[in-house]
Amino acid sequence: MEEERQQQPLKENTVIVLHDALVVTMDSQNRVYRNGAVVVRGDTIVAVGQSEDIISQFSSLSPHLINLHGQFLLPGLINTHVHTSQQLARGIADDVDLLTWLHDRIWPYESNMTEEDSYISTLLCGIELIRSGVTCFAEAGGQHVSGMARAVERLGIRACLTQSVMDAGEGLPASWANRSVEECIQSQKDLYKKHHNTADGRIRIWFGLRQIMNSTDHLLTETRDAAKELNTGIHMHVAEIPYENKHVVERRGVDHGTVTYLEKIKLLQSNLLAAHTVWVDENEVGLLSKSGVKVSHCPAAAMHMLGFAPIREMIDAGVCVSLGTDGAPSNNRMSIVDEMYLASLINKGREVFKKGTTDPTVLPAETVLEMATINGAKSVLWDKEIGSLEVGKKADMIVVNPYSWSMMPVHDCISSLVYCMRTENITSLMCNGHWIMVDKKILTLNEEEVMIMAKNASHDLLKRAGIRVPSRMHFL
Amino acid sequence: MEEERQQQPLKENTVIVLHDALVVTMDSQNRVYRNGAVVVRGDTIVAVGQSEDIISQFSSLSPHLINLHGQFLLPGLINTHVHTSQQLARGIADDVDLLTWLHDRIWPYESNMTEEDSYISTLLCGIELIRSGVTCFAEAGGQHVSGMARAVERLGIRACLTQSVMDAGEGLPASWANRSVEECIQSQKDLYKKHHNTADGRIRIWFGLRQIMNSTDHLLTETRDAAKELNTGIHMHVAEIPYENKHVVERRGVDHGTVTYLEKIKLLQSNLLAAHTVWVDENEVGLLSKSGVKVSHCPAAAMHMLGFAPIREMIDAGVCVSLGTDGAPSNNRMSIVDEMYLASLINKGREVFKKGTTDPTVLPAETVLEMATINGAKSVLWDKEIGSLEVGKKADMIVVNPYSWSMMPVHDCISSLVYCMRTENITSLMCNGHWIMVDKKILTLNEEEVMIMAKNASHDLLKRAGIRVPSRMHFL
Repeated sequence: MEEERQQQPLKENTVIVLHDALVVTMDSQNRVYRNGAVVVRGDTIVAVGQSEDIISQFSSLSPHLINLHGQFLLPGLINTHVHTSQQLARGIADDVDLLTWLHDRIWPYESNMTEEDSYISTLLCGIELIRSGVTCFAEAGGQHVSGMARAVERLGIRACLTQSVMDAGEGLPASWANRSVEECIQSQKDLYKKHHNTADGRIRIWFGLRQIMNSTDHLLTETRDAAKELNTGIHMHVAEIPYENKHVVERRGVDHGTVTYLEKIKLLQSNLLAAHTVWVDENEVGLLSKSGVKVSHCPAAAMHMLGFAPIREMIDAGVCVSLGTDGAPSNNRMSIVDEMYLASLINKGREVFKKGTTDPTVLPAETVLEMATINGAKSVLWDKEIGSLEVGKKADMIVVNPYSWSMMPVHDCISSLVYCMRTENITSLMCNGHWIMVDKKILTLNEEEVMIMAKNASHDLLKRAGIRVPSRMHFL
Repeated sequence: MEEERQQQPLKENTVIVLHDALVVTMDSQNRVYRNGAVVVRGDTIVAVGQSEDIISQFSSLSPHLINLHGQFLLPGLINTHVHTSQQLARGIADDVDLLTWLHDRIWPYESNMTEEDSYISTLLCGIELIRSGVTCFAEAGGQHVSGMARAVERLGIRACLTQSVMDAGEGLPASWANRSVEECIQSQKDLYKKHHNTADGRIRIWFGLRQIMNSTDHLLTETRDAAKELNTGIHMHVAEIPYENKHVVERRGVDHGTVTYLEKIKLLQSNLLAAHTVWVDENEVGLLSKSGVKVSHCPAAAMHMLGFAPIREMIDAGVCVSLGTDGAPSNNRMSIVDEMYLASLINKGREVFKKGTTDPTVLPAETVLEMATINGAKSVLWDKEIGSLEVGKKADMIVVNPYSWSMMPVHDCISSLVYCMRTENITSLMCNGHWIMVDKKILTLNEEEVMIMAKNASHDLLKRAGIRVPSRMHFL
């Protein structure tokens, strides 16, 4: 089976039939085929159904048959908030307070990056994304979008890339301070022109806003209008810490915080992807719902740095919530597989502060799986083409082998995918009709080569930026 | 290298030198050798030091040299609370309320188990323990200790085995109700006689108390005295839910809860391993500290079912806290690797409810690593022989390969082990001087055979117990 798939690309328009799989479609009817098949032609899914029916229906086209022997077939997972540029910074800021994290580690790191660093960092991050089943991600904002685009082109997965944009704020590195609004907007329009819809349509360019404390009103409204003009999305960190809301109340004259202010200036729209969104009150949850804003919930980073977002309340109010990993220095593991597990656990646990006990029924597995698939697709404004296994959608999918120590025995397929699955179980990944990983081997790059590049580039970058990570314990 | 090690056992008293490793000793001085070596003779560590010194010191003995090429060498991890008998029940009780969990799923499951089921369940769980770096575990209490012992003998790791003991409580399965105190104590003494110190000293027998609501006072005090008589430990679930404390206050006439009551009857002693210990007040944290009770913190199960234990406060008060996974139906992942990551995250996050923001400096990586190693050893009363890499201790250790996508780049070795390491990174494991896993292959059993046994046994057991797990989504 492995060899067959490594011989890709097959002739154009070859019909591929993946059969004898448990197919979790994530379609609007939540259909799961116990012995199902998915048919791919080119980059598109052309049929989904029972194996027997599909095989007989397509036999006249001499399809390329791949027997999955009872493995699970799912839509590719979607990571809606990841700083690919921060992958080289994994471990530089663990267990330090927020100011040290930002001023002494992350800002010096990011402001000293080159485009080549960003390329290497995105490749390294991409390996982890692929191994954790991700076929599409939303970049949270970095300095060198062209470096990211080059890496995504090579990795073979799908991405909404975003520049990190700021035009205000105290203590910014010299190279970032004093950028004009016009410069910020124009550089993003240039990136859009250069990269949007490239790599066989796998790359899209979004507008970025780092966060409200680093944005003038002029930047906020110009970004809103430019994104509307180009019909694309805006990715912004929203309501991350209590201080942010306090800052907004004091400086911008609203009674609660960032979400309330964004509503006032009409930035709360359905093309806004609000990352974290931890410190929002009941009224603001209503605003998010009414405006169709998408929320990227990042459970590990929330625990580590920010706090407990009211995710259950958002879901009850109809907000579209998806999952993100955030960046390596905020979390360390860039795995949506782990975030699914965490999302369920911390939101069950959080109820203790509402009800006096945890509530094991909150955020059940099927809801978490929606967050990682179809809600991810809605969040990146790409749900007409990805997020579920349906006829006419792009062929983005993963193969999961549940027959090993980490998932056996399987008494509940769906909960098993959310609570038991580890990256070890994800064996193959297809994006846009191409196999990117087969039997745990990534086909689009040489992993060892990337490790060496990453080791060298990160060493040089830390040196250049003057970042020293103190030793723990007693080294000899 | 693989072949060399698979040719084990070598001649008795062969000296094995593991060198060119980053050796994290976890000794009282927290020594880490950048280029270190550990020497093993028989089941014992006979030297730890710099590679160069060690190699020259032992060269005259014609040692068996194993070059670890910069991989990390650590003490084996210790899981201080795991229900090995529940491994076959993974996925039978996800996302249900506590009463459904207990009465409709877990009790029917456990009360219908045979000794053979327990053997198979422990083998399956053991595979996950070994793959997650565990060389020693404390069984939380199951029905068939002889089945567990047979599995541990074969697995090759170390364990404190415990019977699940109850003599009271409402709604117990018929086969468990009405056991006399004498019967409970005698059956454990018999197990002690039969299994304690067997399997080359790898198995120890402890006394078990399921929890206070299932124990008469007579059982509690007899258990206390019997454990003292045999100089062994007591493993008990303590202060799991608010209802438990309320029950104790109402029925047993103390002013707070289980911990306060256990102090009153002198059960709080240094041989008590208290699992979970979530609902304890400041005074009770003091009682735990003063009495030398050990606490097994199980972060995933806590989030899922119980609540946030005051772990930071316990550590500040000097309580010995270690890590446990709990059982598969409470958590799904039986991995101390994931519990290390979780312990740090949820205890940083919990501070939000104390201080208004999370505190990323709480439970730093070095503290979490202590919990999983030396504190684990203290918790299972075995720290004279295991828990750190020191001369005279047993050779229980793991090899971690950090040179892959899940850990690269490594800027902070210690935090990388806690926050980045995945089971994928653990390549080899030695227990009692024997290689149990080498280059990710477990040498002591055939994994595929265990998977098939587990699938069949769990299917039959659920049928026998009349447990039906409802489908999620729309199966076709």
